[in-house]
Amino acid sequence: MANKTEVIAEPGKQELFIIREFDAPRELVFRAHTDPEIYVKWVGPYGMTMSIEKWECRDGGSYKYTHERGGHTYAFFGVNHEVLAPERLIGTFEFDGLPERGHVILGKTTFEELPNGRSRIVHQSVFMSVNDRDGMVQSGMERGVSDGYEKLDLLLVELN
Amino acid sequence: MANKTEVIAEPGKQELFIIREFDAPRELVFRAHTDPEIYVKWVGPYGMTMSIEKWECRDGGSYKYTHERGGHTYAFFGVNHEVLAPERLIGTFEFDGLPERGHVILGKTTFEELPNGRSRIVHQSVFMSVNDRDGMVQSGMERGVSDGYEKLDLLLVELN
Repeated sequence: MANKTEVIAEPGKQELFIIREFDAPRELVFRAHTDPEIYVKWVGPYGMTMSIEKWECRDGGSYKYTHERGGHTYAFFGVNHEVLAPERLIGTFEFDGLPERGHVILGKTTFEELPNGRSRIVHQSVFMSVNDRDGMVQSGMERGVSDGYEKLDLLLVELN
Repeated sequence: MANKTEVIAEPGKQELFIIREFDAPRELVFRAHTDPEIYVKWVGPYGMTMSIEKWECRDGGSYKYTHERGGHTYAFFGVNHEVLAPERLIGTFEFDGLPERGHVILGKTTFEELPNGRSRIVHQSVFMSVNDRDGMVQSGMERGVSDGYEKLDLLLVELN
């Protein structure tokens, strides 16, 4: 049975959680989140072309990547507060397509081991307001995340 | 009448706000937050000795500083997501004295102009949980912040 992406966004809170299991060990899932050559192949919704412009995967490093479809480009950027292999990633995230700058998200992704070579990731996004959180949920984020993890499932079979 | 520090921490929320006015223009108050030679003179409670170990005041830069008193040293560190003079600072913040790592805070400080060469700063801290926020409030943060701004008031008179 396929692994499902679970998004939890409790009403009135300025945070959301994304929970997803993988049929691969956490070291590999962690690598798929930190190796740019793998990351670029799976993040985001189907039909987008992803490019990585900057990738400093270390404490204090910065990153920037874009998604492109039909001539429209969407950029995402931030800084890595902590890169702790293979357990945890903490950093900031901002989308340059919003009407104004400064709506930044703090993200924490925890990589957990499960029995039988499987693993689970728990991602928490913390927003500057409930409105920011709700806007992200309404943007179709859940589908983009779910699509991305489906692509990652296939890549993990190759890499495992 | 002296300017007062206002801390707003609504029950059950994972954020807090600090609001403070200054009898100095926002450019100068911004400089006092970004120039390490000024910053080191005022941040933190009375009686602490502050040292700056790292100070990269730019988008993507990192910082680390310590407070020392009676042989005990407390370190604070993070990354700057955005340094937008003289308007806004956004970055992460972590205290190394907590029982475990990973309890990171996202901070946004906005510098507003007021009439007659005065200014106001509005700082928002967003936490990974209500518990993290409440722990910060109970740590005596308000006194440390208030002490720091009192020291800054005096420095601003010299610098203005």
